[in-house]
Amino acid sequence: MRVKINCDMGEGFGKYRIADDASIMPLIDQANIACGFHASDPVIMRDTVAMAADHGVAIGAHPSLPDLQGFGRREMKIPASDLFAMICYQVGALAGMLIPYGVSLSHLKPHGALYGMACRDADVAQVIADVAKQFDLPVLGLPNTLQEKTYVEAGVSFVGEFFADLEYQPNGHLAIVKNPASINAKSAATRAINAIKTGTTPAIDGSLVPVNAQSICVHSDNPGGLDLIKELRVRLGAIERVSS
Amino acid sequence: MRVKINCDMGEGFGKYRIADDASIMPLIDQANIACGFHASDPVIMRDTVAMAADHGVAIGAHPSLPDLQGFGRREMKIPASDLFAMICYQVGALAGMLIPYGVSLSHLKPHGALYGMACRDADVAQVIADVAKQFDLPVLGLPNTLQEKTYVEAGVSFVGEFFADLEYQPNGHLAIVKNPASINAKSAATRAINAIKTGTTPAIDGSLVPVNAQSICVHSDNPGGLDLIKELRVRLGAIERVSS
Amino acid sequence: MRVKINCDMGEGFGKYRIADDASIMPLIDQANIACGFHASDPVIMRDTVAMAADHGVAIGAHPSLPDLQGFGRREMKIPASDLFAMICYQVGALAGMLIPYGVSLSHLKPHGALYGMACRDADVAQVIADVAKQFDLPVLGLPNTLQEKTYVEAGVSFVGEFFADLEYQPNGHLAIVKNPASINAKSAATRAINAIKTGTTPAIDGSLVPVNAQSICVHSDNPGGLDLIKELRVRLGAIERVSS
Amino acid sequence: MRVKINCDMGEGFGKYRIADDASIMPLIDQANIACGFHASDPVIMRDTVAMAADHGVAIGAHPSLPDLQGFGRREMKIPASDLFAMICYQVGALAGMLIPYGVSLSHLKPHGALYGMACRDADVAQVIADVAKQFDLPVLGLPNTLQEKTYVEAGVSFVGEFFADLEYQPNGHLAIVKNPASINAKSAATRAINAIKTGTTPAIDGSLVPVNAQSICVHSDNPGGLDLIKELRVRLGAIERVSS
Repeated sequence: MRVKINCDMGEGFGKYRIADDASIMPLIDQANIACGFHASDPVIMRDTVAMAADHGVAIGAHPSLPDLQGFGRREMKIPASDLFAMICYQVGALAGMLIPYGVSLSHLKPHGALYGMACRDADVAQVIADVAKQFDLPVLGLPNTLQEKTYVEAGVSFVGEFFADLEYQPNGHLAIVKNPASINAKSAATRAINAIKTGTTPAIDGSLVPVNAQSICVHSDNPGGLDLIKELRVRLGAIERVSS
Repeated sequence: MRVKINCDMGEGFGKYRIADDASIMPLIDQANIACGFHASDPVIMRDTVAMAADHGVAIGAHPSLPDLQGFGRREMKIPASDLFAMICYQVGALAGMLIPYGVSLSHLKPHGALYGMACRDADVAQVIADVAKQFDLPVLGLPNTLQEKTYVEAGVSFVGEFFADLEYQPNGHLAIVKNPASINAKSAATRAINAIKTGTTPAIDGSLVPVNAQSICVHSDNPGGLDLIKELRVRLGAIERVSS
Repeated sequence: MRVKINCDMGEGFGKYRIADDASIMPLIDQANIACGFHASDPVIMRDTVAMAADHGVAIGAHPSLPDLQGFGRREMKIPASDLFAMICYQVGALAGMLIPYGVSLSHLKPHGALYGMACRDADVAQVIADVAKQFDLPVLGLPNTLQEKTYVEAGVSFVGEFFADLEYQPNGHLAIVKNPASINAKSAATRAINAIKTGTTPAIDGSLVPVNAQSICVHSDNPGGLDLIKELRVRLGAIERVSS
Repeated sequence: MRVKINCDMGEGFGKYRIADDASIMPLIDQANIACGFHASDPVIMRDTVAMAADHGVAIGAHPSLPDLQGFGRREMKIPASDLFAMICYQVGALAGMLIPYGVSLSHLKPHGALYGMACRDADVAQVIADVAKQFDLPVLGLPNTLQEKTYVEAGVSFVGEFFADLEYQPNGHLAIVKNPASINAKSAATRAINAIKTGTTPAIDGSLVPVNAQSICVHSDNPGGLDLIKELRVRLGAIERVSS
């Protein structure tokens, strides 16, 4: 199986942009497209879908908690059944925008605080699993967390991802830093590819964390993100495009 | 062909409600469900879809201009391609929320200012037609306006509706009144059924307006709306339920 | 000192309304007016301010967490300095809308989850105190909680309130019920006036809770709220109007 | 009277930013701060106010139509009395955020579509004038349009501004271009200073348009905006700071 590169895309809003999506899209395998709850709006979603379809990039839904001002990074207490409705809404909305381009959703990947909560809270992970089953989609998530465990137990296809631009805690969870330092593209690419080859990566305390990943995630708004994607693309070889 | 009753449903938001949807749902044939742009949110949409599915009521998408504060009743200038994206987003979102209930969308009906603009502006009507073709849905609209003309020319199935609780201008367009008087259920029902049987209805100046309608729309938030629906239900006979 | 009646007012949004403000306004002493974050919008705020000014009712700012969909009742984790900015924004906005009516703000009362958090979390109460000092306003709050303690220690004038339509826990905090039963106006009024006269009220377990209150709060959207306000008005005597 | 430089500031939202406010603030005389309707949020407003206060820059309110997704650049039909309420809300909100910094509002400048509408529509200009009178503030606006005429007739102090980075129509109105070319700082500065010195500027057809301006506006998000501000600062001499 080919190792893939995934990237969160279309995360602007109205007049705002935070990443150079036009430069990134031709270089990635999987675009996780924001659905309007933490970022994006129908116009940006349309443009991002068009760009992905044009380059044969697989399109995933990237739903979030409803928090545009906080970019979906603030935890909120929402009953599971309401959260299920919110995520169905977002995935459906993106699916609706794919129809004119003749392409289908390829996967689901929760965003920000929702992603983090799904790693630690089985009820939240179960909601993601429930949505994935309704839409019959695999989920990109963090290996060795309640995401993997819950999805697999629910019979949902799990695709582990490795975060090329983030540090890991000894328990395998991410160590989020507020103002990430610029990334050295070559060393970050080496670290990511080693993680996938060996199935382990060094945590912040030097201990080895198991990594069961088939896709490498790069954050496009990190300083140096584009260079890292270019480096990974070269090392991983040409893209395997989806047929539209 | 059976004459149907359609009603805009799920038009609350958060804690707010404007109509007694639970009493209305068992009495109507077609529920036009708000999609979050003029009213509703994922939680209300879920509850409204569940109720419609439960009663075998056909579910239509009721998209709007993006204007929650103005209830979608303020005209906005939006480029056609952006409007197309906004409506695809809404229809897709509602379609996504139907999946868990095993039902499919049955039709499309634009809301408020969008509905009025589609009567008078061929470009707006064309956007509605384009969305309807993508989702392969018929459109409920106002006969003898640019809605009917544009949809039919675009090859979209058009279902004319008669507004049982609104007055008509001599040109066949609606005469919207800000604070509608309470409706007399019996006379309004008689007027609606006559309009559909004879194919004409008296306008506000007494002249006869042609009406090519297969469905009767009642606004649930009008005073007396529920009584009118009950009266129409009795006169039109039992509901023909969709099979789920 | 006269016992006052306070009520949360202007809590509609756009086309939505949840209470009969026009009937309530002439009967109360203090109107806590929503500022657009959990409910209301500039048009409703203007109308509510005009009504309060017309009846000589004291106007308080009723700021909230930013959560229109959740009516400000969902807890959110927000850094204290950001919360301070959000509340200054809301209080300033309402103050700006008073200028055309020649009246000034009389007090501050946090809403919903923000109110509850300020009872239990000294950091949140301190933010409220900081805003109150900037605007030089007393704060309406719950006696015997971190609200009273924090405000008083910060040198902010504290006005205790008794909730005529809510139950109390033995520790003096409120026992919020999701779907409150309809209130018996006479017995609820008696309970409220006794609480203020005796300085204690029975909690849900029968134990006596100390109550240091100068104002009685009634929720206008509770079933029976208007009747309770009428009963209290009769028992407490005529209103002491603010001079505008 | 000294010629001043004004700039729209704090026009990010949540995580988004569109200009380098930290570099611009020390160089300008007047900061028109967004109030949350077309851009900004309480956190960004606080940070922008703090920066302006720190540099002794005069703070103006920069209110807009309610249109975050369209950056306040889409015209909306809103009744005058509602528009008045919306602008009072925004100006009051910003005023509330100034209190902790011990500074006061110095002026008012409408944003985007609201600014353009006030140039052409006397009713809209009158609403701006009405708000300015309530808050006792001068208004920055476009000379030789209904803005100047209406404000002056209403007894509101009018401060004309010249747009250093925009073209003029022969009638004195602005010629808005969607994707503005990068500006040559030296020639744009020369053109602006000539306009103010001579009281005229060449329109796009070469004809001379009268300009009665005391302040030069530069858009910080235009390519080359910062360089133009630097050039103007050098030519106009040191800043005259407001005393806080």
